[in-house]
This record gives sequence, C-alpha cells and structure tokens, in this order.
Amino acid sequence: MYSMITQATFEERREKVRKLLSTYELCALFVSEPANRYYLSGFEMGDIHTYSVGGYVLITKEGKDILFTDARYEEAAYRIWDKQHVVLYSSSAQDIADYLSKNVQGAIGFEEYTMSVGFYNTLAKENSLVPADSLVPKVRAVKEESEIELMKQSVNLNHMLMEQVENLFYEGVTEREIAWKIEQFYKNAGASHLSFSSIVAFGKNSALPHYDPEEKGSVLHSNMPVLIDCGCVYHSYCSDQTRTFWFGDSPSKEYETTYALVHEAQQKSIEGIRAGKTCHEIYMIAYEYFEQYGVAKYFTHGLGHGIGVAVHEDPRLRRNIMTPLEENMVVTVEPGLYYPEWGGVRLEYMVRVREDGCEIL
Amino acid sequence: MYSMITQATFEERREKVRKLLSTYELCALFVSEPANRYYLSGFEMGDIHTYSVGGYVLITKEGKDILFTDARYEEAAYRIWDKQHVVLYSSSAQDIADYLSKNVQGAIGFEEYTMSVGFYNTLAKENSLVPADSLVPKVRAVKEESEIELMKQSVNLNHMLMEQVENLFYEGVTEREIAWKIEQFYKNAGASHLSFSSIVAFGKNSALPHYDPEEKGSVLHSNMPVLIDCGCVYHSYCSDQTRTFWFGDSPSKEYETTYALVHEAQQKSIEGIRAGKTCHEIYMIAYEYFEQYGVAKYFTHGLGHGIGVAVHEDPRLRRNIMTPLEENMVVTVEPGLYYPEWGGVRLEYMVRVREDGCEIL
Repeated sequence: MYSMITQATFEERREKVRKLLSTYELCALFVSEPANRYYLSGFEMGDIHTYSVGGYVLITKEGKDILFTDARYEEAAYRIWDKQHVVLYSSSAQDIADYLSKNVQGAIGFEEYTMSVGFYNTLAKENSLVPADSLVPKVRAVKEESEIELMKQSVNLNHMLMEQVENLFYEGVTEREIAWKIEQFYKNAGASHLSFSSIVAFGKNSALPHYDPEEKGSVLHSNMPVLIDCGCVYHSYCSDQTRTFWFGDSPSKEYETTYALVHEAQQKSIEGIRAGKTCHEIYMIAYEYFEQYGVAKYFTHGLGHGIGVAVHEDPRLRRNIMTPLEENMVVTVEPGLYYPEWGGVRLEYMVRVREDGCEIL
Repeated sequence: MYSMITQATFEERREKVRKLLSTYELCALFVSEPANRYYLSGFEMGDIHTYSVGGYVLITKEGKDILFTDARYEEAAYRIWDKQHVVLYSSSAQDIADYLSKNVQGAIGFEEYTMSVGFYNTLAKENSLVPADSLVPKVRAVKEESEIELMKQSVNLNHMLMEQVENLFYEGVTEREIAWKIEQFYKNAGASHLSFSSIVAFGKNSALPHYDPEEKGSVLHSNMPVLIDCGCVYHSYCSDQTRTFWFGDSPSKEYETTYALVHEAQQKSIEGIRAGKTCHEIYMIAYEYFEQYGVAKYFTHGLGHGIGVAVHEDPRLRRNIMTPLEENMVVTVEPGLYYPEWGGVRLEYMVRVREDGCEIL
C-alpha cells in the first residue's frame, strides 16, 4: 500500500504547484516548511530533530527543481533526487542566496511564517522575495485518492484503539501509563510515530485542551471524566481523534449535560459539511448551537483543521476563515466545552468533504 | 529528584538573563524559542505540536516578567505563573505587538533565527526590535549542579541501554524493530520521551549520519556494521550517545581501521577538553588527527554540541566557533568517518567541562 505514493506522485504535485506560479506572479517557489517539502519531494519528513532543517526545495517555472541539503543528508538526497539537481550547502542561507541570485531571474515565493528573520535577511540581500505561504497548503488541502486510502488505514488504527481504550482504565492507573499503552498499541500495529503526543487527561485536567500527561501523571479515581485525544502516523499519513469517557458508575449531571451538548454540536456540524460551504459557516453551526444553550464561552478553540502529512493543516474550521470547503478535503470536527472546576468534554472525528455532504473516516 | 528544578530555579535563571540585558543595551527580551522559554519559565516544553507555539516569555529590566499564551493554555499558565502577569492573545503577533508598544519603552531583544518573518513584521511595526539570539543560550550553556545531576540520570539510562543493545542483534531483525525496542527500554525505565528519533543503521546505512530507520527498515545480516545513536529525555533533560558495533565474526579490515581511528580521535579530543580551550581548538584535535591519516574528508560534521533541555544547544564544537569552553558546560564528543561503499563509524560520549579537564558522564 505504501508504494501508492511514488516519485511520480511527488512530481505530479510539483507540477500542480508549478502551474500556480504564474497566478502568484512568481518565477519560482522556495519551500522551507518541512511538511510542504516532504509533500513535494518525499525528502526526509521524519525530521530527526524537528528544529534542525534537513533541506529545502525550489520549484521553478522551467521545471528544473532543486533539492538543497547539507552533507549529512547527501546520500539520502541522491537516493531520491537527480544528482545534478541536488545543491549541497555548508552555510545554508548564504549558499542558497548565492545559488538563487545566479539561477533565478525574478520574484521568488517564500513562506514568511516559516522562514526565520535571520535566514530571510541573508536571502533578501541578493534576491526578490515575495510571501507565498498559502500556495503549497492550498494544493495539500485537497487529498488525492491514494492519500485518503492511507489516511483511512491510519484512522482505522484509531478506531481499533478507541474501541478498546476503556479496558485500560482502572482505579490508580496514571495518565502517563495509559499514554504509553496507547503508543505501544500504535507501534505494534505498524504505525511509525504518534501524530502528536497523546493527550490523556483525568478529571479537571480534561479542562486543559492541550494537556500533556508526560509531565503531570494524575491518578485515576472513580467517577471522573477521562479525555483521550490521540493519533498516529501510518505510512506518512496522520490520524487524530478524541473521545471523552466517564470512569465509574455515577456520571455527574454537568458531565452528562455537557457530553450531550458537545455530541449534538458535532452531529450538526458534520451534517452541515459539504463542498462550497465556508469554514466560517461550519464553525458557526457548533458555535451558535452552544450559544443557544448559553455555553459558547466555554468553547475556547476552533472547530477543526485539515489533516494529512501534518496533523494540523489547511483548511482551519475557524470563525474568521472564509475559505470554501472543496471535495476531498479531509478535516477534523472537534467541538469541546471546558470547565476548570470539574473538567471538559471534546469529541473529534475526521471527515472527508464530498459534493453533497461528508463521509466520516 | 525532579523537584530539584523548582519555580525558584526558573526565577534565578530569569535574574541571570535580566542582568545581561544592559550588556546588550536592551530594555527587555522577548523569548520565542521553545527551549529557551521552557528553561526560563517551566512552561510547556513538552510541545504537543512542535510547530504550534505554546507561548512566549518577556523578561523586562524591572522584573515584571510576562508569560504570553492563548486560551488553550490558560489554565496551564495559571498553574505556574502569577495570574496578573499572564497575557492571553487571540491574534498572537498583533496582540503581542500592542502589549509591547504600550508597556515597553526602548529596545526589545528577539531571536531572529527563531522568529518568523511574518510574526516579526507585525511586531516591528510598533516596536524597536534588536536581534539577541545568543543571550539565553549563553546562560543555558553553563549547567547548574542540579541540571548535571538530572543529565547524569538521563545518560545512565543510555549506559544501561548500550550495555545490553547487542543482545537485540540477530540475523533478520530490522532497523525499525531495534529502534522500537530501544524506545520501549527508555519508556519502561522512566524516560518521558526520546531526545530524538533513534538512529539504528545497518551496513551502508551507517554512512548516513542522520539516517532515519522508520522509513527504510533494512534487515540485519552477518558481518555488517551497526550504528546506534540515541538518547532520552528524563525529567526534562536530554541524553545522546552513539556506539558502532560489528555484527558477526569477521569485521572487515576497513571497519577495524576506521573504528580505531575514530576511537583514537575521540580519546584525544576528550583529553584536550578543559575550560578556556575554544570549540575550534577541540574540533581541530579530531580533524588534524584524521588529516594525519588522510581521512579528514570523510569526517563530514561537527565534533559535538552542547546538550541540556534541548538535545542540540550551545556550544557547538565546530571548526569556525571560537567560543571558549567554560566549567560546567556539557558537550558531546562524536567524531565519525563515513564511506558510502560500506558504511561508517561514529562514537559519542557526553562530557562535563572542568577547569582542569573534563568528566565523561
């Protein structure tokens, strides 16, 4: 199944980007965002050190695309890229600046929300740079059939996990122990990584939307909520799902009410999704439903996000995003309500946008 | 042991940074680099999504230090920071720009190799920003006694692993299977994370200094080199070690010669380390030793790097770094030689710099 994404796939994607260059009035696009780079080249997504950049890709109007990297990755680069179009740098910004000024005449797109100020200042001395952050994400947002196939496999591991995860709950277990069991499940099932550090939150901790169980490690006791938000990377594609459970026989009234509200908001949002609707419109379905019950202020984050080779990508289902959904976008739908006094509830599915609705993965 | 690093520790570190502000002619320092932020605040190092910033810290001359974050981390922030000095943003760059222009008069230091161009452009409209990337790393580079204590515990797990790791080698095992066993070992021993994705490289793959076994998964056969480079995070402190082994009874002549050269280069470098020597001088010990044997061109990376809350930090033992070593810096010493035809050898220790030499951790 892995072989469905081949070097030809990466080339086709670069062609799509190349076609957009003229719309953006660019001669070339310099890609520094790691997931964009991987999406367009297959080069080293498994960033060993996330802050240490493995390379850059240059997409040019004429089609002589360049892979920039350093000596550490030289062999890895030659394994996937035409050797004469690999450029090795030692001092990355200066060497790339020199290459671009010699080889590209005209405006070069760059990602202003990924590139650092220091790197930019060196590049910009000799080149004409124009922000074009949205170009590759726009292409990435609409998934190919084979991508969706791989994402289904990734999310299938999640479904299997979520069916069994309550078996891991017992009096005295820590959040960390469950998080580690989840990771072992994914790895043993063939996932290469977690798509993000799993969130396992007991009781009041479930009111922290981005809680990290590694550092805390609360202990489970009877009658508290348990929020599980996790996912894996399977053949380079991410999954991401959230469920909230009650551990014990006597769910509190607040929990039951909150669960019902979040569940209904999620249902209504999913029913509203179809190609042509804007992100804003879908967000507002959940928001207005919560507003009707006077709880909208406890819904403190967006409704969802695109997902693919990265766990968070375009489009974002947020209040101020007017982008229309397109067929074969894949987004999460994850409303939540959070109460510091006792905890929170979040429910999350991944869905594929269709012309006439959507399909839950 | 974890409690050795307390809120008082973070305050002391901020005082050290505050004292440096006048040297840099700054009124305040805006910290965006995640490891710097964690080092100065204890805030959310366990980045759930590494590309999604959890917050920022502002160190001011007067001592009213601010933690900026968004609603997702509000509760987490109040758990560690004086509520009246937490500033919540919704639109991060604009809200922070406004806060700074109202509350800070004068030059504000920022990290130009971490901050994105887009973020900077918004901040710089209303504020006077000055690059100060080296300020916090300078403080971080010299370890406190309690940090070294924690790093010793982290590296002890590595020593235990390296003593046993050859037991995992057998005909037919994949790189990925060994990497996963290593991860399980660390987690079961109490580590919270890997400090980076473990490198397990068989045969020719050992010639790729930053090889990722997740994507490839070669199979082990008799008589090939096995390079293992790995480490863990234990109570927020990183370890990082490399060993190279030969699997089988008949190590090749090239392997044995290369191993001996790398081992000797490492020994000589370690013997040369002491406070006052520059990074350049230590790098040159290994480089010149290799040069003497005509193999310096196969030594394709730096000799080592500082390590602490991040796996790569200052100082860097590189040819062009003239920084003098100081007592209680902790650095790796990791010479390597790489031959695409058959593989490579790298050996890595972590050492603590002393006035009169160094101590292997």
